[in-house]
Amino acid sequence: MLEVTIPSFVQIIEFLGTFAFAISGIRLASAKRFDWFGAYVVGVATAVGGGTFRDMMLGTTPFWMTDPVYLLCSGLALLCVILFSKYLIRLNNTFFLFDAIGLALFVVVGIQKTLDFGFPLWVAIIMGTMTGAAGGVIRDVFINEIPLIFRKEIYAMACVIGGIVFGICMFFDLNIFITHILCGTSVFLTRILSVKYHICLPTLKDG
Amino acid sequence: MLEVTIPSFVQIIEFLGTFAFAISGIRLASAKRFDWFGAYVVGVATAVGGGTFRDMMLGTTPFWMTDPVYLLCSGLALLCVILFSKYLIRLNNTFFLFDAIGLALFVVVGIQKTLDFGFPLWVAIIMGTMTGAAGGVIRDVFINEIPLIFRKEIYAMACVIGGIVFGICMFFDLNIFITHILCGTSVFLTRILSVKYHICLPTLKDG
Amino acid sequence: MLEVTIPSFVQIIEFLGTFAFAISGIRLASAKRFDWFGAYVVGVATAVGGGTFRDMMLGTTPFWMTDPVYLLCSGLALLCVILFSKYLIRLNNTFFLFDAIGLALFVVVGIQKTLDFGFPLWVAIIMGTMTGAAGGVIRDVFINEIPLIFRKEIYAMACVIGGIVFGICMFFDLNIFITHILCGTSVFLTRILSVKYHICLPTLKDG
Repeated sequence: MLEVTIPSFVQIIEFLGTFAFAISGIRLASAKRFDWFGAYVVGVATAVGGGTFRDMMLGTTPFWMTDPVYLLCSGLALLCVILFSKYLIRLNNTFFLFDAIGLALFVVVGIQKTLDFGFPLWVAIIMGTMTGAAGGVIRDVFINEIPLIFRKEIYAMACVIGGIVFGICMFFDLNIFITHILCGTSVFLTRILSVKYHICLPTLKDG
Repeated sequence: MLEVTIPSFVQIIEFLGTFAFAISGIRLASAKRFDWFGAYVVGVATAVGGGTFRDMMLGTTPFWMTDPVYLLCSGLALLCVILFSKYLIRLNNTFFLFDAIGLALFVVVGIQKTLDFGFPLWVAIIMGTMTGAAGGVIRDVFINEIPLIFRKEIYAMACVIGGIVFGICMFFDLNIFITHILCGTSVFLTRILSVKYHICLPTLKDG
Repeated sequence: MLEVTIPSFVQIIEFLGTFAFAISGIRLASAKRFDWFGAYVVGVATAVGGGTFRDMMLGTTPFWMTDPVYLLCSGLALLCVILFSKYLIRLNNTFFLFDAIGLALFVVVGIQKTLDFGFPLWVAIIMGTMTGAAGGVIRDVFINEIPLIFRKEIYAMACVIGGIVFGICMFFDLNIFITHILCGTSVFLTRILSVKYHICLPTLKDG
């Protein structure tokens, strides 16, 4: 019997984030003339790659192996790119927003899951950052480009800032729900503002 | 006491498949001027990389750590490339056949192992595809090329088709041996026919 | 209460090795115009990447998740590159020495840990080699170059030679301390001598 359940707020955000991450992978893959299957693999890797490495390091089963929704969501993203590719450019701002929302949620999920496994906060911040940012690194390795997040606007650093906010909330013993909201919001705002004002980290000069 | 055992049919196929996968990695590495050790590493990664990621995701010890035959087989492949490199081109069709046979077997092994760990069929199909196709992706990342399987004739998709055939056999409650044969055969035929008739998946047009 | 403990000889060597590995990652990243965060990630991946894959294959928690010293050490390396980049070239020989010392120690640690987990020697040699050499491969994948260790002077092969020496010591039932010293020394000397005399492994000619 198929059960129809109303998705929770978190599930909706997770779906949007996965969708936006997959879209970014699929579009970059298609610019490199990947076929549908290759584009789908890159889309999935972008969406679930970070959380997969997190779960392998935590010693638990990768999250997407317990619920097919993430792969279906990536499939939906592929379908959208196939059907509506010429209209997608107009939606760039929408996808950017989805991506920033997804990033915020992935960081919160990654930190909380790591803490639930009994690791200290500094490990959790790293795992939150990995959940949010490693998918994009895997994507760029697959399409044979230098990972974008290592060179462009603040992205992974937004995850770290969110992690620090999470830690401050824990220090002041705030309610877990408020902690999650503040952490996610700080990731989201850092990301949005750094793109809006072209804030970059300094680069290194090789001696 | 050294026991001499007659290898089973499956072991012979597995050996041929590992050998063909390793040869493909070593030859591509040598085209990039890798030294012997580098070529060997790429050969091993091509041959066992997919199964290694599968086993890490399943939460079990990578299969090659329990039996040295896979690394020895890759070493034999290196020796063949060193000694007979100029004759190998004539054998391209033979290696292509070995590769397709190996692919078929790797998919069957990957699916069955994942089901044995209690995961549902859709996870098993993904793991079967990963067992067959991920080694080639790792190989192409090591030699700094865009992964071939994302752009050329049907390869990973052959694994998925084999997985679907596996699922259909399970649905009709067929004997496990017949299921394995039908799954492997469908992978093999899909691969052979797609190369013979240059069947490709469509590529995406970037909007 | 902050406890001040005098670090052991092994801890000092491990710190120097981690530092040298991180420096090599950070410098190569900065030559590619990575920002500070990207350079730090590449530095960390170079320093702990090999051991992380080893631990995931052994089925245990990656070592750096239990002690923040490795990430702090990489952070110190970043600080040094930022502050002293123009003086670092003069120290190339020093870093080369640190790197060779670190390589030797990483191999000993990787072999011993794998044996402690009950695996046979041949697995331990592979894991020792991976501990020492895989970080450099990950570094080169991140900066989108063909992994250097697959083409240049003897590097990974030095780890294998150290592993063989380890095995010989075990065969003769030598004291564990002497075994470690002899293994590490053979890695160190092989590495130093191969660079000094430009000893390379032969490359393959593609047929």
